[in-house]
Amino acid sequence: MLPDHNALTSLSRDNQTRQVRESVSKVEKHFGELCQIFAAYVRKTARLRDKADLLVNEIHAYAATETPSLRNGLKNFANEFSKLQDYRHAEVERLEAKVVEPLKCYGTIIKLKREDLKATLSAKNREAKQLSQLEKTRQRNPSDRHIILKAESELQRASLDATRTSRYLEETIDNFEKQKIRDIKNIFSEFVTIEMLFHGKALEIYTAAYQTIQNIDENEDLEMFRSSLYQTEHQSRLDIVRANSESPLQRTASSKSCPGIVQQISRNPLKKEEEDEEYDNEDEYED
Amino acid sequence: MLPDHNALTSLSRDNQTRQVRESVSKVEKHFGELCQIFAAYVRKTARLRDKADLLVNEIHAYAATETPSLRNGLKNFANEFSKLQDYRHAEVERLEAKVVEPLKCYGTIIKLKREDLKATLSAKNREAKQLSQLEKTRQRNPSDRHIILKAESELQRASLDATRTSRYLEETIDNFEKQKIRDIKNIFSEFVTIEMLFHGKALEIYTAAYQTIQNIDENEDLEMFRSSLYQTEHQSRLDIVRANSESPLQRTASSKSCPGIVQQISRNPLKKEEEDEEYDNEDEYED
Repeated sequence: MLPDHNALTSLSRDNQTRQVRESVSKVEKHFGELCQIFAAYVRKTARLRDKADLLVNEIHAYAATETPSLRNGLKNFANEFSKLQDYRHAEVERLEAKVVEPLKCYGTIIKLKREDLKATLSAKNREAKQLSQLEKTRQRNPSDRHIILKAESELQRASLDATRTSRYLEETIDNFEKQKIRDIKNIFSEFVTIEMLFHGKALEIYTAAYQTIQNIDENEDLEMFRSSLYQTEHQSRLDIVRANSESPLQRTASSKSCPGIVQQISRNPLKKEEEDEEYDNEDEYED
Repeated sequence: MLPDHNALTSLSRDNQTRQVRESVSKVEKHFGELCQIFAAYVRKTARLRDKADLLVNEIHAYAATETPSLRNGLKNFANEFSKLQDYRHAEVERLEAKVVEPLKCYGTIIKLKREDLKATLSAKNREAKQLSQLEKTRQRNPSDRHIILKAESELQRASLDATRTSRYLEETIDNFEKQKIRDIKNIFSEFVTIEMLFHGKALEIYTAAYQTIQNIDENEDLEMFRSSLYQTEHQSRLDIVRANSESPLQRTASSKSCPGIVQQISRNPLKKEEEDEEYDNEDEYED
């Protein structure tokens, strides 16, 4: 009954090894994919942060050209929105450290498990080889007790070794499964916690940001705009007076701040942006 | 004193036109840039949603290969996370409609304002032309009352027209400024409201998602994993019995569900994924 028994343990061990290999391959495949997609999710979050940073800059740039109330409202909004991007940056770094990295570590863990599997497989192969060696020896030298005993003892040693590595594999795969479930729970819990922290901060910051926008006083700004239109008219009268005086210095100054008709009509369209910038600077009001 | 007065109104109007043009150019530049960056922000949010959708699919795919408690926990998490992506999708569509579109509309508004400016400029040019016409006429025909009167009346008409379009421009730019501040307030308020709605939902959903992860029972799954290892051992004993029976049908069936040593060792690495899939299917437990 020895060969049958051997075949049984061997088959049983094959199945065990197969199941372990499946388990390891499954984790290798899915943790690898989860790692890649989580990393892509984190990258997209970082890209969103970058666009939001551009938005902060552009809101500041626009605000600087505007009437006081709108300018203050937009600047305060940009400051709040910028704070939120700091939290988004923290979100990105935490996700990287607490979700992507632990998944990445499974690359090494899988490698070690594969080595355990390989050792088990070699031990099993040695056992099978010894078994066929013993059978050959029995067929060729059925009466040579000495050589048969030697082959039997070698088979026994190989069998013990196969059993030992197999048992070790069983233990190690048990730990592997336990650790895997704990890690998955931990990684997803961290993911949710990090995301919740960010969303909570976002609600807090947007509440303040909403108020900065509501505080913009349209009427105050409109009055300022109208009075600046009036000031221009008043200024132009002063410029005429200056233009009629004799000082060439004053003339140059006035013609610079108030370009004449010809200058305006013949405006080089290619120079548009440069001039716009000049106007933007002139357009600034005091706080 | 007529020329001086004319020069004054003309200069005053130049300044007014210049200020209006500045205002329009400023809005054209900054609303254009805000529109582009908001659009990019929305696009990145959509990309984040896409990556999250991939994550949902992969979590489902992985969950299907796992022991019941982990599988259920992950599936429930994926369902919650998928719901959040529906809200993110709504966020994307709302931002597109309430932030990007209104900013885009300023393209048309700016075009209309530029037409108003052009009309004012033409009227002003006609007036200047009539003024120099009158002066030429006076120099060339100082005694021809008829021709001078005609030029004077033409200048008067052109002046009235210039004043009229200038006043219209003043009115239209006043409305433009008023509308602009209102629109900015509205666009930023909508932005904050849409974002807050999403972040609020995110907190709600993640709270539920966190629970699905905490509910994963490691011990339940470990027992299941261990018993499946034991089942395999038990199954292999049955397979031996079947392999020893004479039915070729049974033999095929058993060798299919339990591939032998040779088959496993000579496993074609190129076929790995196909086989993994087969194992994944075998690996499924009932709910």
